Amino acid sequence: MRILGIDPGIARVGYGVIDTSNGQQQMLDCGIIRTNPGIDDGERMVEIASDLRQLIRRWKPQLAAVEKFFFYRSSTTISVVQARGVIIMTLARFRVPVMEFPPMQIKLALAGSGHAEKDEVLDAVMRELNLDQPPRPDDAADALAIALTGWFQR
Amino acid sequence: MRILGIDPGIARVGYGVIDTSNGQQQMLDCGIIRTNPGIDDGERMVEIASDLRQLIRRWKPQLAAVEKFFFYRSSTTISVVQARGVIIMTLARFRVPVMEFPPMQIKLALAGSGHAEKDEVLDAVMRELNLDQPPRPDDAADALAIALTGWFQR
Repeated sequence: MRILGIDPGIARVGYGVIDTSNGQQQMLDCGIIRTNPGIDDGERMVEIASDLRQLIRRWKPQLAAVEKFFFYRSSTTISVVQARGVIIMTLARFRVPVMEFPPMQIKLALAGSGHAEKDEVLDAVMRELNLDQPPRPDDAADALAIALTGWFQR
Repeated sequence: MRILGIDPGIARVGYGVIDTSNGQQQMLDCGIIRTNPGIDDGERMVEIASDLRQLIRRWKPQLAAVEKFFFYRSSTTISVVQARGVIIMTLARFRVPVMEFPPMQIKLALAGSGHAEKDEVLDAVMRELNLDQPPRPDDAADALAIALTGWFQR
């Protein structure tokens, strides 16, 4: 099964693609969609939708796992929630089923505790995907953690 | 100038189109995009994006005015903010400039007070657009109020 993990954002969207078809999880791709800070949110979301469409076409994921949010206060996070809407809509347009996981559930699935530290989650990602180096940047590593959570919880 | 007003939502999106080129504001269209309650948010947002694209192609607005949000608490409003992201992104894709107005500013622009009652705003919409009947449903009337605010504040 091919799974696309996504860590939503407006300035940067982390993504990670894993494949689980050989009985062991393997990383196929990871990185970030970085949007232009000099343009407004609408145009940034156009960039996100466009880059995400390319990722979906390239990797043809059978499942997407996306981090879930609960509370929003500042205008910064309104932008992030809006961008998340564009991400969810784009996945639906390509008929990719979506699972959503709050941060605590991702930590629990990877590191055995909903209050695990970032490093513990990162170690688990490296171990599960058999990586020698931590995936960079952080948002890409987070997206791989989300993809793995999708695999464990599917 | 042709202005598209939008009252964002996930179950229903109100829209109103006005034209101001004859020295007086005129209503060209209003209504709601109603999404299927039996499908998930992703698919509902695909419907919203699709119907909004049709509206933009039909009316070719030179400006869009969209209600702005500030605080979100329940998961219902997360869905609404996500849908709003899809709306803003779709407008940006068609290069329609977007102005955003919080509810108080709309009430102030239409009825002279940020704390005006709904009926006072509705009366102002009818007066400004020379309508005999109140626009229905409510979301369509709200969208016309937002479009008029865009015209007054442009």
